[in-house]
Amino acid sequence: MIELRSDTFTLPTPAMIRAMNEAPLGDDVYGEDPTVRQLEERSADLLGKQAACLMPSGTMANLASILVHAPRGSKMLAGAESDIYIYEAAGATVCGGVMYERIPNQPDGRLLLSDLRAGFPDEPEDEQFALPSLICLENTQNRCGGVVLPQSYMKEVWEFAHERDVAVHLDGARLFNAAVALAIPASEIAQYADSVQFCLSKGLGAPIGSMVAGSEDFITEVRRARKMLGGGMRQAGIIAAAGLVALNDLGRLQDDHANALRLAEGLAEIDGIDTDPAAVQTNIVMFKVTDPRFTWQMFVEAAGHLGLSLAELGHGRLRAVTHNGVSTADIDTALSIVRQVLTEGRGN
Amino acid sequence: MIELRSDTFTLPTPAMIRAMNEAPLGDDVYGEDPTVRQLEERSADLLGKQAACLMPSGTMANLASILVHAPRGSKMLAGAESDIYIYEAAGATVCGGVMYERIPNQPDGRLLLSDLRAGFPDEPEDEQFALPSLICLENTQNRCGGVVLPQSYMKEVWEFAHERDVAVHLDGARLFNAAVALAIPASEIAQYADSVQFCLSKGLGAPIGSMVAGSEDFITEVRRARKMLGGGMRQAGIIAAAGLVALNDLGRLQDDHANALRLAEGLAEIDGIDTDPAAVQTNIVMFKVTDPRFTWQMFVEAAGHLGLSLAELGHGRLRAVTHNGVSTADIDTALSIVRQVLTEGRGN
Amino acid sequence: MIELRSDTFTLPTPAMIRAMNEAPLGDDVYGEDPTVRQLEERSADLLGKQAACLMPSGTMANLASILVHAPRGSKMLAGAESDIYIYEAAGATVCGGVMYERIPNQPDGRLLLSDLRAGFPDEPEDEQFALPSLICLENTQNRCGGVVLPQSYMKEVWEFAHERDVAVHLDGARLFNAAVALAIPASEIAQYADSVQFCLSKGLGAPIGSMVAGSEDFITEVRRARKMLGGGMRQAGIIAAAGLVALNDLGRLQDDHANALRLAEGLAEIDGIDTDPAAVQTNIVMFKVTDPRFTWQMFVEAAGHLGLSLAELGHGRLRAVTHNGVSTADIDTALSIVRQVLTEGRGN
Amino acid sequence: MIELRSDTFTLPTPAMIRAMNEAPLGDDVYGEDPTVRQLEERSADLLGKQAACLMPSGTMANLASILVHAPRGSKMLAGAESDIYIYEAAGATVCGGVMYERIPNQPDGRLLLSDLRAGFPDEPEDEQFALPSLICLENTQNRCGGVVLPQSYMKEVWEFAHERDVAVHLDGARLFNAAVALAIPASEIAQYADSVQFCLSKGLGAPIGSMVAGSEDFITEVRRARKMLGGGMRQAGIIAAAGLVALNDLGRLQDDHANALRLAEGLAEIDGIDTDPAAVQTNIVMFKVTDPRFTWQMFVEAAGHLGLSLAELGHGRLRAVTHNGVSTADIDTALSIVRQVLTEGRGN
Repeated sequence: MIELRSDTFTLPTPAMIRAMNEAPLGDDVYGEDPTVRQLEERSADLLGKQAACLMPSGTMANLASILVHAPRGSKMLAGAESDIYIYEAAGATVCGGVMYERIPNQPDGRLLLSDLRAGFPDEPEDEQFALPSLICLENTQNRCGGVVLPQSYMKEVWEFAHERDVAVHLDGARLFNAAVALAIPASEIAQYADSVQFCLSKGLGAPIGSMVAGSEDFITEVRRARKMLGGGMRQAGIIAAAGLVALNDLGRLQDDHANALRLAEGLAEIDGIDTDPAAVQTNIVMFKVTDPRFTWQMFVEAAGHLGLSLAELGHGRLRAVTHNGVSTADIDTALSIVRQVLTEGRGN
Repeated sequence: MIELRSDTFTLPTPAMIRAMNEAPLGDDVYGEDPTVRQLEERSADLLGKQAACLMPSGTMANLASILVHAPRGSKMLAGAESDIYIYEAAGATVCGGVMYERIPNQPDGRLLLSDLRAGFPDEPEDEQFALPSLICLENTQNRCGGVVLPQSYMKEVWEFAHERDVAVHLDGARLFNAAVALAIPASEIAQYADSVQFCLSKGLGAPIGSMVAGSEDFITEVRRARKMLGGGMRQAGIIAAAGLVALNDLGRLQDDHANALRLAEGLAEIDGIDTDPAAVQTNIVMFKVTDPRFTWQMFVEAAGHLGLSLAELGHGRLRAVTHNGVSTADIDTALSIVRQVLTEGRGN
Repeated sequence: MIELRSDTFTLPTPAMIRAMNEAPLGDDVYGEDPTVRQLEERSADLLGKQAACLMPSGTMANLASILVHAPRGSKMLAGAESDIYIYEAAGATVCGGVMYERIPNQPDGRLLLSDLRAGFPDEPEDEQFALPSLICLENTQNRCGGVVLPQSYMKEVWEFAHERDVAVHLDGARLFNAAVALAIPASEIAQYADSVQFCLSKGLGAPIGSMVAGSEDFITEVRRARKMLGGGMRQAGIIAAAGLVALNDLGRLQDDHANALRLAEGLAEIDGIDTDPAAVQTNIVMFKVTDPRFTWQMFVEAAGHLGLSLAELGHGRLRAVTHNGVSTADIDTALSIVRQVLTEGRGN
Repeated sequence: MIELRSDTFTLPTPAMIRAMNEAPLGDDVYGEDPTVRQLEERSADLLGKQAACLMPSGTMANLASILVHAPRGSKMLAGAESDIYIYEAAGATVCGGVMYERIPNQPDGRLLLSDLRAGFPDEPEDEQFALPSLICLENTQNRCGGVVLPQSYMKEVWEFAHERDVAVHLDGARLFNAAVALAIPASEIAQYADSVQFCLSKGLGAPIGSMVAGSEDFITEVRRARKMLGGGMRQAGIIAAAGLVALNDLGRLQDDHANALRLAEGLAEIDGIDTDPAAVQTNIVMFKVTDPRFTWQMFVEAAGHLGLSLAELGHGRLRAVTHNGVSTADIDTALSIVRQVLTEGRGN
């Protein structure tokens, strides 16, 4: 099966397995796991932040960050197409009494400053209004096709936020994909956010975990939130060991990007598929089945029978994500399968 | 001062004062205030519901209703221009862990069924998604200019909601304005909602309070929420007595509507003012100052100096609201003041 | 009916009615009700605080205060016998994510410093522990029989709290009873709390409302919390007018205290009743029916038939509360009724 | 270093490492990790429940369970000495609006039925009262010295709860220690609870994770809560593989119990140590340093210098916990170290 549903399906590499076997361990709830400490320091360094903290998931990395930034009753402004808004089960509302204010994403992933501005009431002293405390960005922006936010835009939002005394949290689940695409260190992106999370378990290929980074004080509070949410793990060095290996080979993400482009270019040549290779910036390809014989459900099912696993990602669009479990040869096979499905017309 | 900022500025009438003086009272926290009971029964009857409950405000009437309908972590779909979304300080999020999902209001106040539908995830069993539990409508729709939602639309939403097992709450802060405009009993509107709140303190002219109505079981739970929020009041018959008087003279709202139309027609003839009398359905007139010498702030200030009190209501629009403290003669004076402001050009 | 269940049953006096009729009114949600403003200033002055705010109930006065003092996830230490802990429906937990930590009340109402101290973890930096942010006291202490906390104790707790950087909130629902009993101004008590609430609707005899007082900044935040909870009321001057009258005659509470003592002394002489007149410090008398023919339920019912209304207040104790609707003659009648009930042995 | 602070310090065994290396993996957020599924089925079977769910920690296992059982604003009754009450950072209050009601633990770990009963208001329809929805027990009871709750008591509480329509959640962090001590299958204990959690990472020796078990419907809701809290992990089979190994060798816990008893008996013979070997039921030994030359802090530090790691667990008591990283020889060494510390009198 060629697994293109998500880069969360990556399996640990032999080097990761080896690292997990050999990692020195301790009880991280007591702060005594040396491998976790090493990963946290390494992550903070990579992002140019004072400190970092291991989390069982990106969802908790985002949630704990929001809880620290956003007081009860305040608003966080987040993209209507952001994973935080759509896929995280309203956690900040449930656990924090924080209001999500949905801001439209432009096709290139940006939230317009004018739209952000409208989230700030003219009369903040008027007791009727919930007040913004936080702006959440996502980079790369998953549901906009893995697009990378321009550095100039990151800077603009950062300045906009700080003029208004609100924080910026960056959901960088695929931060290193953005960094690789921009050919800059991740810290250059992270400089425009008060806190950043990235996932070890997506393109980086580790089995479990996400990192959140920020100032010392912020991370101290994040650790409290993590404990409260139940994210404190014991011999978490097991997980961290694989994460450290992943961070040693960030350049590998270029292969995923090349494979995604190859896939998009191939798809663009197939009748009955609508996609725009020029829109592929990282490891995600969005496309639509335009062949009238197929609903997206039928197409996904037919491709699945032939060994190609795809997912829908809202609005009937299909998403293909490349990762370290997908080779260039797999891409070519995937394209063959798509052609075969459309030729055989299983949709009927 | 001609007070057109809001119908919340109404002062109690002599009949209300008399009723407050004479009302039999008790401790309503013990359920022993006969005047409150009478008002609650009367309100339930008027709305065709089993029971009703007195609240200190419309905000609490909405909040308690949402808390009862919407479990922690569920979503309520509400208009982007609704008072519940904008003016109620994120109460449902803070007190209930309920997510607000902002649905665009059409200019006529409606939330499109297609937009509501998009709030329901295709795969409700997917744990990533917060699930809708409630749709909130507002009728009349304040920020859309006091427009009345068509009965056919109310019915459509009702059916849509019940096919999906979610409740409908109606913020009827100005419900009786809608009923008078449609020339139907309020109960005909209320039939399309599981719960309804209306304000005694807006067009009805009572000093304090709102009523929420619904099924017996719903109101039992609303009373618990009210106590928890701190809305239990002792000799609340004082407030209820005025409310009962207000309910005796609902027809009076027609005068407010006539005055609003007179105002709009007058304004439409004034250069430098942009308004559409055809859009006036109840007691609210929206208009813009187009005279380039004035910002809306300057215009409001200048009118204030001459004895006319107006408010802005988002997007730079001015709002004038008629009520029982505004006579037809006041409307004519108000129009004179507007003319005078624009003639004198105080804006410069 | 002689109503001794609670001092919340007081009905407005003619002077209050007159004041309500004549009070200048405005929309208090806009901060424009002059009578409310006057009451707020008067209340702040009486308590020696910078500012005060009218609330629809003591429950909301407490809740809003807690929300301002206590961050999400922190603990408030409150008496196991306090009204805040028992009778306020867990509001601080629901609306604020604040943990109630129950501290035993001594029979004289105090929370021992050693018990308060145990609520502070030895290792506050350990992420496992919720940290205290607030200590709540109640004075007079209702369920301990309306006892008055000694000023030296108030001071001790105040110092204890401030050494630990936590705030003190005083539930002074019956604050003026304490002040009258101690023959000191209420401000001398209030000096040992960051925030204080008192009820207009208990011994003070007004129909509705409570006041919360504190620093300017605190009250600004309390107003936000009030709006969010739905406690903003329109022409609230109606309520405030009665409150102002009540504040003019605080000395009257001495009569209630004398009546309570008269009642206790009378009860102490009746066989089958157990009470301690020496424990009566204010307007509350606690007693038990020891006559084995009666459960407390039977006794309350029998007294009710003869025109005496009493309530149970936990642990099978009966509570009688004096107030401005109870004269000295009523006390004597009440004693006759108690004697009659026990003589007739209706309990059988 | 002989590590007796906690059984959370266990390191994975070679068999666990091997299992982690070889486990078939998938993305558990999609429900596709076969090793996780196997562990969940195995856990449900062992506990006699319909379903089970892997969690990153016992804290989240407890928290998610509480969120499912306890509606917003309800009370959970939990032991004053329970880990849920003390060590879980008020999570149920923060994330669920659930009130903790602290019930005293008897020295043998039990919550008296009379104390539980007092948590149920006589008049549940009275809106002032938060209503109980859940009783939480802990078995073995950590802070009471790892004592086992008698089966007859478990049954009594179960019946008590079900007569009152509230659920029972069992924090069985060390459930298998209880089962081994009672020489019964864990399912016999679990039958008296609606939900049960146990930790893979304590006596069972796995590096990370806890399991929660209950009915199908319950676990479906727990999975939603887990996702919201951020407990969804990707290739969680890594963790699960070690858990499966741990479940294969439950009998090993007998060695820990024997070692704990050996330690207690040894300590009891040492002057300056106060402990009761008869109180040791599982793998926990509580003792006090009575030698007046030592505070507990001094004693712990001195022992640490000699290679023995101990922890305080409230009220100045020291706790020693045996586990698979502590051999019988280690126990004897530990006793030597204690003797040496007291002989040398480093406390001075």
